[in-house]
Amino acid sequence: MTLADLSPSQIDRVLARAYHLKQYTLPWMGPWQKRPLHAVGQTLRFKTIALLFSKRSTRTRISAETAALMLGGQALFLGKEDIQLGVNESVRDSGRVIGGLCQGIFARVGEHEEIEELAKYSPVPVLNALSSLWHPTQVLADLLTLHEQAHLFSGSEPPPPPNGQTELRSLPKLQPLTIAYVGDSANVLHDMLVTYPRLGHKLRVASPENAKYRAPKPVWDKVVKLQCDKDIVWTADPKEAVNGADLVVTDTWISMGQEAEKEQRLKDFQGYQITEQLCREGGAKENWKFMHCLPRKPDEVDDEVFYGPRSMVFEESDNRKWTIMALFDLLFGQWLIPKVKQ
Amino acid sequence: MTLADLSPSQIDRVLARAYHLKQYTLPWMGPWQKRPLHAVGQTLRFKTIALLFSKRSTRTRISAETAALMLGGQALFLGKEDIQLGVNESVRDSGRVIGGLCQGIFARVGEHEEIEELAKYSPVPVLNALSSLWHPTQVLADLLTLHEQAHLFSGSEPPPPPNGQTELRSLPKLQPLTIAYVGDSANVLHDMLVTYPRLGHKLRVASPENAKYRAPKPVWDKVVKLQCDKDIVWTADPKEAVNGADLVVTDTWISMGQEAEKEQRLKDFQGYQITEQLCREGGAKENWKFMHCLPRKPDEVDDEVFYGPRSMVFEESDNRKWTIMALFDLLFGQWLIPKVKQ
Amino acid sequence: MTLADLSPSQIDRVLARAYHLKQYTLPWMGPWQKRPLHAVGQTLRFKTIALLFSKRSTRTRISAETAALMLGGQALFLGKEDIQLGVNESVRDSGRVIGGLCQGIFARVGEHEEIEELAKYSPVPVLNALSSLWHPTQVLADLLTLHEQAHLFSGSEPPPPPNGQTELRSLPKLQPLTIAYVGDSANVLHDMLVTYPRLGHKLRVASPENAKYRAPKPVWDKVVKLQCDKDIVWTADPKEAVNGADLVVTDTWISMGQEAEKEQRLKDFQGYQITEQLCREGGAKENWKFMHCLPRKPDEVDDEVFYGPRSMVFEESDNRKWTIMALFDLLFGQWLIPKVKQ
Repeated sequence: MTLADLSPSQIDRVLARAYHLKQYTLPWMGPWQKRPLHAVGQTLRFKTIALLFSKRSTRTRISAETAALMLGGQALFLGKEDIQLGVNESVRDSGRVIGGLCQGIFARVGEHEEIEELAKYSPVPVLNALSSLWHPTQVLADLLTLHEQAHLFSGSEPPPPPNGQTELRSLPKLQPLTIAYVGDSANVLHDMLVTYPRLGHKLRVASPENAKYRAPKPVWDKVVKLQCDKDIVWTADPKEAVNGADLVVTDTWISMGQEAEKEQRLKDFQGYQITEQLCREGGAKENWKFMHCLPRKPDEVDDEVFYGPRSMVFEESDNRKWTIMALFDLLFGQWLIPKVKQ
Repeated sequence: MTLADLSPSQIDRVLARAYHLKQYTLPWMGPWQKRPLHAVGQTLRFKTIALLFSKRSTRTRISAETAALMLGGQALFLGKEDIQLGVNESVRDSGRVIGGLCQGIFARVGEHEEIEELAKYSPVPVLNALSSLWHPTQVLADLLTLHEQAHLFSGSEPPPPPNGQTELRSLPKLQPLTIAYVGDSANVLHDMLVTYPRLGHKLRVASPENAKYRAPKPVWDKVVKLQCDKDIVWTADPKEAVNGADLVVTDTWISMGQEAEKEQRLKDFQGYQITEQLCREGGAKENWKFMHCLPRKPDEVDDEVFYGPRSMVFEESDNRKWTIMALFDLLFGQWLIPKVKQ
Repeated sequence: MTLADLSPSQIDRVLARAYHLKQYTLPWMGPWQKRPLHAVGQTLRFKTIALLFSKRSTRTRISAETAALMLGGQALFLGKEDIQLGVNESVRDSGRVIGGLCQGIFARVGEHEEIEELAKYSPVPVLNALSSLWHPTQVLADLLTLHEQAHLFSGSEPPPPPNGQTELRSLPKLQPLTIAYVGDSANVLHDMLVTYPRLGHKLRVASPENAKYRAPKPVWDKVVKLQCDKDIVWTADPKEAVNGADLVVTDTWISMGQEAEKEQRLKDFQGYQITEQLCREGGAKENWKFMHCLPRKPDEVDDEVFYGPRSMVFEESDNRKWTIMALFDLLFGQWLIPKVKQ
């Protein structure tokens, strides 16, 4: 449901698996798409994963479909026009029925309660593809990107080059980072809040002073329970947030379905656009990097940053595939989070 | 098009194939979804089945897609938004074109004439996934469920446990049952009418006294032609229908597209909700069981029955997959209904 | 983007590959759909092709999905309701993201500029499935049909029967044909204009005297650059166009999205319907043949011609699959247009 459900060591294992799948699959030179791809363990052979998506999706959906194929199975895209879920049939009944026909469910629903209900009645594991509260697979992709780009941050060691072996090794630990998030308190941030502090990083968040832009109670309760709050600074000033940051993260302020409030939101988030100037004035580290889960609107970040050398946005989106593949492999293929060599 | 097109012995063969595919594929212990699935004969290798669906579908669609995958092929979901059928192109032309690109068509259309037209012009076999008149794959799934649960009915023998062999045996015969159907005369009932009497069972149907709730002429003509009418009792009184019943079946009264008549229908079907009380007062057998093709609305059956121990609704929905897989295997993979050992 | 991008010898190679894939795959007797299909080189193994389709599609979509399956991969249908492209995300960003997750993009977009933009930013090859200006895969299918049916035209040699070998041979050259196109200047005609003259055939086109029914400037510029114009006659008189024709081609005058202008178009194209009478009066060759890319409306061709022995329309639609498969194999599987034995 959220990365709060996984221990730091389980998160490590998923990341190690994702890195391994990526390196083992890809040819070792040239544009990888050109070459035959190496086969990984076909743990989804003859298996089908239901993608229950009630909203448009590019990255999550394509990642899921390509990942399932590479593991020998198939993902079944079931959009809101396709099936009865929540229209003609209760979530409870659909959960039981779909779980009786498929070997896993990857769900992008509206309200978070819906996916909890699905998980309650499905006989197979349910993985959260995005809910109103959480977005765990995005933060896993961001973490894999940080590991791969570790050399860009002082003191961290990048993962070893691929050696063609199938054994699974833990990735080198990242040095503690200061991570700034500037924007609305939405699902990506929520999973950052319950994850980064447990992995040794500090979080600095800027959002307007209004309850609707701050973390909702069920999220903050988990933050406190996991003792993450002590490493989180929350402010209404974007410049204060980026102070000392190694990494600056943002997300759109106007998600699908929020178009009605657009004008109000544009006003409330005035001054929140990530630019070179904002980060210079706020005192971000000289070689700060930028992340965004996409799709992006120019309101929250200008072209100079978004398409510039600080940006890791497309590496993040590429890594959606490998981290989702690791989760599919572990949860739906093997039904376990395996140990890795330290 | 309907089970009326198959002889009792051909129906037996399809059921035997479905049971075999199910038992051979599944691991013999533990939740089956967890384990690697055994490969069955890849009779759809490199083959594609077009799913022409003009309405929402959960069970039929997922069953078809998972079944095709397990047989080595792929089902192609083509919804009403996706292709030209009946919008921009005649059914005749689309049938010929799609049949020239795929190796089978599984169609869920509106009016029954449309699928007859498709079958006329397609160079590959066309299987009815649901039409205004018939729903053959549902009744096959119900029959497989009755065989698997035969020990629940006095005197019948359940099928033998799996023995890991690939040979195909006929399932033990079911003892004659009394089957009540309470509700609208719709496609599921129609296939029951032309099937159960030929397999030795008695049918008792309750629907309001109004021509639109009774079997339409083309259906009843087939019933009479197959001499099924002598084992069918039709009444307007639900209690009379469930008298002596081993099995009580219903379906929604308000299908997709009938929302306009909703109020009238709710009135006409007052007293038709399946409950413990109705069946007790009507004199159903003590251990009567319950079936519903789903999706279910509470109007036609209360929670106590639907979620209670009499209910076989989720076994039915699980079996959609295996019976559709048997049909795909026989019709699209092998183009035959093979003999089985008696 | 268009066949103008390929040299005549590259077009030959694609056709030879398509013919080879078709002959090698199909069993040598009986209705081919019945038998197991032979495996061809699995050059798309574990690979995924994104189908970005902003309009309904039957032939192109099914051809792409079945072709990808036979090459060991999977095509991913992404309709305009499914993804963010052009709705929530710029074409540039979507192109980079999707190209980072898949190994090829097959796009049916609206304006031709959109697919140029996609190709510019995608890290993997982009193939035009249909744009406002061009329709290269249709004309390849037509060419394969002409080769297969070469014996119907005086003096041409049909391709050799399959010999079970995997080696790739060039198809025998077609004798020069006179090809008439009667109708709107649309994407299919545009690819005919830049292709047939280069392969030694003459084109005679009839469209009403109105700039909107004539080839737009970017198309005509390519025609002139490739020196195709010297073998093209353009008139407003359908009878003049079909004079001496071996082959008569048309397309609908009212494409998706043009319904508003319907009345005007019906008026402008009065007298353009392809009939036996028109071709007799115009002086087409006695054994003229007929082609149409489908879907067809009766306005542009009557039933006698469309369903009669002159019609090759369903052979064309069958060949969509094999020519698209050749392109997928060469572009997305092998990233090359290979040499063939002459």
